Amino acid sequence: MMMRVRQEGDDPLKVALLGSGIVGTQVAKLILDHGDDFAARIGRPLELVGIAVRDLTRPRDGLPTELFTDDAEALVARPGTDVVIELIGGIEPAKQLILSAIDHGASVVTANKALLAAHGDEIFDAAERAGVDVYYEAAVAGAIPIVRPLRESLVGDSIRMVMGIVNGTTNYILDKMTTEQTDYETALVQAQDLGYAEADPTADVEGFDAAAKAALLASLAFHTRVNGDQVHTEGITRIVQDDIRAAREVGCVVKLVAIANQLDDSQISVRVHPALIPLGHPLAAVSGAYNAIFVEADAAGRLMFLGPGAGGAPTASAVTGDLVTVARNRARGVAGPNQTIYNNLTVADMGAVQTRYFLRLRVVDEPGVLAAIATILARHGISVQTVLQTPASDTASRTAASAELSLMTHMAIESNLLACLSELKANPSVRSEVRFLRVEGM
Amino acid sequence: MMMRVRQEGDDPLKVALLGSGIVGTQVAKLILDHGDDFAARIGRPLELVGIAVRDLTRPRDGLPTELFTDDAEALVARPGTDVVIELIGGIEPAKQLILSAIDHGASVVTANKALLAAHGDEIFDAAERAGVDVYYEAAVAGAIPIVRPLRESLVGDSIRMVMGIVNGTTNYILDKMTTEQTDYETALVQAQDLGYAEADPTADVEGFDAAAKAALLASLAFHTRVNGDQVHTEGITRIVQDDIRAAREVGCVVKLVAIANQLDDSQISVRVHPALIPLGHPLAAVSGAYNAIFVEADAAGRLMFLGPGAGGAPTASAVTGDLVTVARNRARGVAGPNQTIYNNLTVADMGAVQTRYFLRLRVVDEPGVLAAIATILARHGISVQTVLQTPASDTASRTAASAELSLMTHMAIESNLLACLSELKANPSVRSEVRFLRVEGM
Repeated sequence: MMMRVRQEGDDPLKVALLGSGIVGTQVAKLILDHGDDFAARIGRPLELVGIAVRDLTRPRDGLPTELFTDDAEALVARPGTDVVIELIGGIEPAKQLILSAIDHGASVVTANKALLAAHGDEIFDAAERAGVDVYYEAAVAGAIPIVRPLRESLVGDSIRMVMGIVNGTTNYILDKMTTEQTDYETALVQAQDLGYAEADPTADVEGFDAAAKAALLASLAFHTRVNGDQVHTEGITRIVQDDIRAAREVGCVVKLVAIANQLDDSQISVRVHPALIPLGHPLAAVSGAYNAIFVEADAAGRLMFLGPGAGGAPTASAVTGDLVTVARNRARGVAGPNQTIYNNLTVADMGAVQTRYFLRLRVVDEPGVLAAIATILARHGISVQTVLQTPASDTASRTAASAELSLMTHMAIESNLLACLSELKANPSVRSEVRFLRVEGM
Repeated sequence: MMMRVRQEGDDPLKVALLGSGIVGTQVAKLILDHGDDFAARIGRPLELVGIAVRDLTRPRDGLPTELFTDDAEALVARPGTDVVIELIGGIEPAKQLILSAIDHGASVVTANKALLAAHGDEIFDAAERAGVDVYYEAAVAGAIPIVRPLRESLVGDSIRMVMGIVNGTTNYILDKMTTEQTDYETALVQAQDLGYAEADPTADVEGFDAAAKAALLASLAFHTRVNGDQVHTEGITRIVQDDIRAAREVGCVVKLVAIANQLDDSQISVRVHPALIPLGHPLAAVSGAYNAIFVEADAAGRLMFLGPGAGGAPTASAVTGDLVTVARNRARGVAGPNQTIYNNLTVADMGAVQTRYFLRLRVVDEPGVLAAIATILARHGISVQTVLQTPASDTASRTAASAELSLMTHMAIESNLLACLSELKANPSVRSEVRFLRVEGM
């Protein structure tokens, strides 16, 4: 590892950029266009020394061609580099490049949620040993400042819950399904046409992107290392228009939420799934590609952070905010606060989660059926808050008299709920699958 | 100044607390109750070494009596104090105590917006010379993290505007006037009965508290020293029920807002005044004693921060967040980032501000009057977006046929608007005062 000595004056801090996609290009432009401001804020000028890309032949949108290289390994190993900005994404080669940068004494700024959620411990440990910074504000909720508020502003408080809408693609799709009554496939194609969803939308619609962010948020909020694969993850691909309609009937919207909350003194729950959110909750109004994060802390109470969750410019804002902070630390010969992972709380199985549930099923429309259903629920310790019974709208079901039941439960334990569902499915009065969605924010 | 050498291990960091009101008591309890958590987050334990109060005879709500002293000067001068938390408020003796603490080598955490808005330069300069921290997250918008987001998360971006509801008392009063159609005096008495307003509500209702916060927000957002007395300040005491009603008719609510925005390359506007906010704007829904701050930045776009703006526990959360951060810096032998006041933008006169205006006046109800009014407006460069003309509801005016005119302008320059108002008042067709309110967030 190269040791740096604190230097005063105009000696520039050297910045290497890995990746020149939409975000990388914006970051490079901000560095080149705002040199004077950044120098004043840091106390020393920045010099962009290189941009590593895969394909040197692609046009580069006004950026100086001499900055480009296709040898990322050589760029991060270049002596005297102060900050490496990693914007290539994915696990490899990003991981080896970041570890090499740290090993060569550079601080790192990254937007790579998947990498940090999978290998954060290795990267943060290496940074701590080397005395350099790894900052990642852009990895969670784009331009919304949430890493610093959790790591610093709320560090004197006890956080009880973090709940967020942290994936703009799925929020856009669910929004379309809600406001225009489209089905999932139509909304997905619209999102793809507008560039909100990728050609292969798996990482977004299956909840994997949100799960990586949930892991990072949980680690910060509970001072406990949580990896992405510990996050219970359900996407939105099974949500149908009927779920949205039924949610509306009980005054709720369906959102994909990432939740980390404390269950007891030794356990947290970290999960991503669609949930009914009451219309009066601040998260219910978060529309389109916006992100929002709701934090509940013992002393602070309820806080919300709202802003653009993705996109080139907003993500670049978060990256350059980290760049200036890290460079300022560098200019002063210090490193920022480390991760404080001291709590080692257990990430509970999904079965241990307590929440409310919204159940929908079709039953034979005859006296005594509701009582039978309620008895099954009660036997599993599940108490019902409201029941809505309507004649079945599906024409196929008209062959026999049937009714649709919508039930909202009080708080229940997920394992009890699942056992109850098995029993309901086996009951001869039940004429359909039993759909269930969790209800949050009530 | 005492120099400190970095020490490892269990040697506690010494904390002195000035003031033991509602917030101070909460802070002391958090320090005493969360010792293990704080020690793990800081890397060293905290020791509360003393609490300075004015009256030693008052009961102290479970806190150890041996901690209390009425000699604040001696407490801040005590050798080896690492952090002084100032929660007594006001200018003196807070200012001398903080300067003495800095002089004795302690870092400072304060919630004192009035002091920082008036004498921030002197305090921050002293801290920089001494190499200690002055943190003040609790001084603006209670528990809402806004100082760090502006100073760090958004430090790579160019902020265009900060607009906030930063005074819970006035927000509560305006809310009551809106939802219950009460008059100002009734709403004020309700706020006082509930403890949201003080017996002497001047600092809140005249906008002085919000002005101090506006000065701090503007200094952070624009890297320019702004003092409280440079903030154009209007309170809510002249708002009448008729203003609220008229605002509703054009789809707006009346809020007291603190605004700092960039006018051009060399000028900013910093102001506190009531304003019409369109119902669709996120700030319009901020109710009761909540605070919210809306930030518009070049790259990040629009962000909003929402949470409890006052109260013992939320303010204590912000104070202890600063305490842990400052103590962590201390344990690592570093100081946090300094103020970056390099921009020296001019705070423009209110006359230079450009915004929209909502005008209400009663005119003689006869043909040609609207044309005459519109001509006067046009002569002053003010273009009208919408006009609403209704028969006057005031019975006193029925002696002559009159009509009430409500006009919403396009963007206009305040000095032009004021010149126009003078001319309107002198016009014989105008039968009333011309009330005007600014319109923000459109």
